Amino acid sequence: MTDFRQQALDYHAHPTPGKISVELTTPAETSYDLSLAYSPGVAEPVRAIADNPDDVYKYTGKGNTVAVITNGTAILGLGNLGPMAAKPVMEGKALLFKRFAGINSFDIEVKNKTVEDFVNTVANIADSFGGINLEDIKAPECFAIEKALIERCKVPVFHDDQHGTAIVTAAGMINALEIQGKELRHANIVCMGAGAAAIACMELLIKCGAQREKIYMLDTKGVIHTRRDDLNEYKKLFANNTDKRTLEEAIDGADVFVGVSGPNVLSAEHVKLMAAKPVIFACSNPDPEIRPEIALAARDDLIIATGRSDYPNQVNNVLCFPFIFRGALDVRARTINDEMKIAAVHAIRSIAKESVPEEVLKASGSKSLSFGKDYIIPKPMDSRLRSVVAKAVAQAAVDSGVAALAMPEDYNG
Amino acid sequence: MTDFRQQALDYHAHPTPGKISVELTTPAETSYDLSLAYSPGVAEPVRAIADNPDDVYKYTGKGNTVAVITNGTAILGLGNLGPMAAKPVMEGKALLFKRFAGINSFDIEVKNKTVEDFVNTVANIADSFGGINLEDIKAPECFAIEKALIERCKVPVFHDDQHGTAIVTAAGMINALEIQGKELRHANIVCMGAGAAAIACMELLIKCGAQREKIYMLDTKGVIHTRRDDLNEYKKLFANNTDKRTLEEAIDGADVFVGVSGPNVLSAEHVKLMAAKPVIFACSNPDPEIRPEIALAARDDLIIATGRSDYPNQVNNVLCFPFIFRGALDVRARTINDEMKIAAVHAIRSIAKESVPEEVLKASGSKSLSFGKDYIIPKPMDSRLRSVVAKAVAQAAVDSGVAALAMPEDYNG
Repeated sequence: MTDFRQQALDYHAHPTPGKISVELTTPAETSYDLSLAYSPGVAEPVRAIADNPDDVYKYTGKGNTVAVITNGTAILGLGNLGPMAAKPVMEGKALLFKRFAGINSFDIEVKNKTVEDFVNTVANIADSFGGINLEDIKAPECFAIEKALIERCKVPVFHDDQHGTAIVTAAGMINALEIQGKELRHANIVCMGAGAAAIACMELLIKCGAQREKIYMLDTKGVIHTRRDDLNEYKKLFANNTDKRTLEEAIDGADVFVGVSGPNVLSAEHVKLMAAKPVIFACSNPDPEIRPEIALAARDDLIIATGRSDYPNQVNNVLCFPFIFRGALDVRARTINDEMKIAAVHAIRSIAKESVPEEVLKASGSKSLSFGKDYIIPKPMDSRLRSVVAKAVAQAAVDSGVAALAMPEDYNG
Repeated sequence: MTDFRQQALDYHAHPTPGKISVELTTPAETSYDLSLAYSPGVAEPVRAIADNPDDVYKYTGKGNTVAVITNGTAILGLGNLGPMAAKPVMEGKALLFKRFAGINSFDIEVKNKTVEDFVNTVANIADSFGGINLEDIKAPECFAIEKALIERCKVPVFHDDQHGTAIVTAAGMINALEIQGKELRHANIVCMGAGAAAIACMELLIKCGAQREKIYMLDTKGVIHTRRDDLNEYKKLFANNTDKRTLEEAIDGADVFVGVSGPNVLSAEHVKLMAAKPVIFACSNPDPEIRPEIALAARDDLIIATGRSDYPNQVNNVLCFPFIFRGALDVRARTINDEMKIAAVHAIRSIAKESVPEEVLKASGSKSLSFGKDYIIPKPMDSRLRSVVAKAVAQAAVDSGVAALAMPEDYNG
């Protein structure tokens, strides 16, 4: 086992198993403290909430709590390993929620039976939380699950593997095209992969201006086209009326390649077939669809982003999910709608275009960062993300009428 | 509003709404930290758990996490106010779990639909936790719910309103009878109330030696007897073949009165009818079945316990539930069986009989405490409870064959 792998195991085993704990926010030393925290004092907030349901936000932690929920059917790129194997990932997500956005978060792993059973289980417990982050649920079930839960829950439900990835991809993509002197609405796009992230990415790019008929989506059987009869309802939306069948045919003249599939499926030859000044997002992790050094050796007019922290332009969901929930919670949004997602896209974009403060350079371990081919999206350790993204999301929630609260004065996430 | 009521509300509203937060136990400052906590490092514990399911205890917080779960149908003595109104109580329980036993605990409020739906929901998420504490679920549904969950879950499920109350009551009762020179097996017992706590108390007293035919249980219609045709299956077990119909008739000559009903149902006249040297547990909270000063004015040969902290002999579940879970978790018991409950009874009893260390006196705000009429059970702030009760429970789990682990060396809770 490599040093890193052993270190990762040790990190999870020490000082105590796991990565998160529950702590008290109120004094609990004396008998009197406990008489306020529990019997008889606790009867007061109970009565207050019974009289006025909104008081649950005043007297309990609900409003700053997000549950991270999975059935373990699509863990990272590792597949369906079951809910218990997913637990370290879910606890990791909870850690990131707290670390980046101050949100109390814990994980719930649900037995994987039917879609209906999963939805019913989560809907039954949803009121306990201020929001629900779905994670590592395989496609196509994840689409039906998210749709049903959004309908049934009074709190925001967000499948990060879909929308977090889509938001960060869209932010980086629009910036990269701008640098290349191109526009999303004119771009020929190849999407390698047709899972949850792929479909969500393409749907959001379309909402940001891309044209559906200029998208070629490929699954394991090649291009998704209108004459295929093996498509589920989600892939069907991307069936292109085309004679192209292979990646080689699809990528010929493409401006954009988005890979959310698997390692090394894009070759130097493919890259050479793309249009002038192309953009490649090779997001498979840890091994991208093509290594940046191979792509850049094939031609030097491209911009490439990956999911890796050891190359420039890391597409990392942590740029989005802590802050989209921060904004949603702070104005008590009942859902996370397209307006909020698009606001997050443009907020993330805007940060990359601004000059980078010294402390952000330091935290990111970078000597200099300026908007360009090697810096199209902010770094994960950029402390500006919280205020800028949360504020944009909260404002979009208020403006689109899904927020129960007004925009707080001087709101900064 | 009184000062105390306002203080209780303020306590719940500040410094942040609620009483608990989630915090990190591992470093998460640098990019490298995050590469261990999340992608790509987190893949290592995922793979380890997929290969060896027991590794979930090594690399995640499962083994030290207890969920506090309710449907809000019987909140404190306030009734069925719904799951959201129960949230402050559940968060309070989570606070007590951490404060007294170092257990990470958070609350889940489940929509109240059918017993079957509740059971299915909790069973679906149960593997996320090391144990489940059910709370504030009304009788008789709570019995079927607990039974079904114990069958379906691989982790301990414990309805504290039943068994926590029963264990602390039994500990105090056996000690009180001993002081009075009596034995449980000869005691005539009146139980006022026939809800979850009442039935669990009587069942545990029987397991500790009380005789079922010497128990008169009363519900709102009077004595539960064999000629009644309105009894649910749980009350039926206490149907006494007797001509007694009223509290007045039942209490005539009784050695023991256990009240888990409501305020002021026991009068001085009733107390005078009891046998010599009686024991009264007036557990209704905050207003007991009889005020101690009224009972003691009626006769001075009695011992009385209440649920209140401002009288001697407080029956308080916090003497039990943090430690029964501490012991169960530490040897990874798959259930909390009668052997473990009875071990907890005798462990709690034993502490009251030992001389009280100075720091316990100080923490309890007492000048002196010695085993006798005014000190039959330990004080909630007694720091000896954790080691003594958890150890007894863990040993009982190991001895009765329900523990996955051996007794840890030098175990002290």
